[in-house]
Amino acid sequence: MQDGRLWIEDIPVPNPGEGEVLVATKACGICGSDLHALQHTKAFIQTSRAVGDGFKLTTEEPVVLGHEFCGEIVDFGQGTGDQYRVGDLVCSMPMLLRSEMIGLGFSDVAPGGFAEYMVLSERLLNPVPTGLDATTAALTEPLAVGMHAVNKANLRPGDQVLVVGCGPVGLAIIAVLSMRGFEVVASDFSHGRRALAERLGARTVVDPNIENPLADIQWPQDGHTVIFECVGVKGMIDQIFANAPRQSRIVVVGVCLEIDESRPLIAINKELSMQYVLGYTPVEFTETLRLLGSGQLNVAGLVTDQVPLREVITAFERLSDPNTDGKILVIP
Amino acid sequence: MQDGRLWIEDIPVPNPGEGEVLVATKACGICGSDLHALQHTKAFIQTSRAVGDGFKLTTEEPVVLGHEFCGEIVDFGQGTGDQYRVGDLVCSMPMLLRSEMIGLGFSDVAPGGFAEYMVLSERLLNPVPTGLDATTAALTEPLAVGMHAVNKANLRPGDQVLVVGCGPVGLAIIAVLSMRGFEVVASDFSHGRRALAERLGARTVVDPNIENPLADIQWPQDGHTVIFECVGVKGMIDQIFANAPRQSRIVVVGVCLEIDESRPLIAINKELSMQYVLGYTPVEFTETLRLLGSGQLNVAGLVTDQVPLREVITAFERLSDPNTDGKILVIP
Repeated sequence: MQDGRLWIEDIPVPNPGEGEVLVATKACGICGSDLHALQHTKAFIQTSRAVGDGFKLTTEEPVVLGHEFCGEIVDFGQGTGDQYRVGDLVCSMPMLLRSEMIGLGFSDVAPGGFAEYMVLSERLLNPVPTGLDATTAALTEPLAVGMHAVNKANLRPGDQVLVVGCGPVGLAIIAVLSMRGFEVVASDFSHGRRALAERLGARTVVDPNIENPLADIQWPQDGHTVIFECVGVKGMIDQIFANAPRQSRIVVVGVCLEIDESRPLIAINKELSMQYVLGYTPVEFTETLRLLGSGQLNVAGLVTDQVPLREVITAFERLSDPNTDGKILVIP
Repeated sequence: MQDGRLWIEDIPVPNPGEGEVLVATKACGICGSDLHALQHTKAFIQTSRAVGDGFKLTTEEPVVLGHEFCGEIVDFGQGTGDQYRVGDLVCSMPMLLRSEMIGLGFSDVAPGGFAEYMVLSERLLNPVPTGLDATTAALTEPLAVGMHAVNKANLRPGDQVLVVGCGPVGLAIIAVLSMRGFEVVASDFSHGRRALAERLGARTVVDPNIENPLADIQWPQDGHTVIFECVGVKGMIDQIFANAPRQSRIVVVGVCLEIDESRPLIAINKELSMQYVLGYTPVEFTETLRLLGSGQLNVAGLVTDQVPLREVITAFERLSDPNTDGKILVIP
């Protein structure tokens, strides 16, 4: 990918450096950030730099995207090889100890997961639990995002939860909430995504074209209403301000790249609180993979398609319009 | 006050109804809400109705403003008189059990504190502790606002606090934070208000014309930075987003009546949290008055002037421009 263009080409197999292993990528999910990076490269770079998030994406050089991956070890760099064997399935947070994010950074040093081979730092590897397939293990990254958002919400017994938007992030949050026993109402315009939300454990699903999930449903007024905003579109937060019950806690997971507008007086009068969240911790990543392995975290139906490399461009196009897909995995 | 006009006239002494007492108002502070209600009556009514805050202000009828008061009991309505005697000093939250807010509601049933006499609900009275004068007791209401904001911040040991804006609300927050032993940096464009902040216990004061309190001072990046926004002007929250350290907790106390603009991507990348706050609880009101009585809550210098009723209009004018005043009390 470079500056809004996506194509397939042969590049050299990367060399694992000191402390690094070479893996054959078994599966890699397409993320909303990938779509953003492709469709709005310049804005993505500009906002990333403004907030200092460490992405090294540039319009000057091509990059191999892909940061939700599972790989199989095929070779070892210097100083590695004691802990793993060739053929082991591994996951990793999308970064190298060289401190460069994979999949949104320099393609020459580290291709992302939409390539047949990647290098990973051995110390950041997480072995895939026995019996867990690579395609489910590749969901670790997006599910860790959901796990982190739920953790940052500091949920308490009796909390009732609304998830606004059932894209992959909203669905990941629903899966984690269901595992923890919370009752979830989920809202999305897409019939297909509402069906996915139900499969992942949402008790009630709402079509916002027909029903206002905050105004038409009874919610606690005493601080036990928690709203996960997973849309990231301008005006969503103000809409939530207007409809949320008093003392609601809003967790902002959807990434709105624009300048947003809202009416603080409404938030003040209702004493709303907001927690903006991003990413996950290494512990949350490892814990998510463990819960996938044990089967406690149910992700049935989350993957709606698997495509080979030659269909990546079509898959990006499919995901760029409002659609019914959950997660699409690329199998390089 | 009616629809932007302020004048002085004689009105009948109100009759205390069942469960009510008649008090002679000894002191009543001028609040930012009084200024808003005067200068932007229609907008104030419109936004109040939009958020359903229960104010019954209208442009159709005049109202006696004033909701930060201390009074002396002069007469008893039906069913009262067992607990208090004529001459007792009392405070009250600005509401009657008839459920009408005093000072921003119907003037015919309940004049506010800028009148020589008011009726109050006996069950809502708080006796002024022995030795505390009426002028200090009249500060209970605005200080309870500060107490509530500090309580909602859920401060932890080691938190470092910035108070942005040293108007009466910012100063109240500084007084409460100092009492609780927190180190406070306070920021305000006015030299006079910075001096007041120091008297009330701020360790450091900053002139934002010279120094950026968030960018030029070292703050914790680990969630121990707490920022009280007490300005309430459009763009302030975005400015705080841009300069705040990661994991900062922002408490929004300043009331911005406009549609505000901010960049959510910055808040997401820093995982900021926000707590919008309003008012106080009855327990906080009572506790504030007790702490004023015991001397633990130091409010030295907070009152910068006391004026008789005939100077109310001038006092409102003084407060409407950027100024060096803390709290101005009206002595009816």
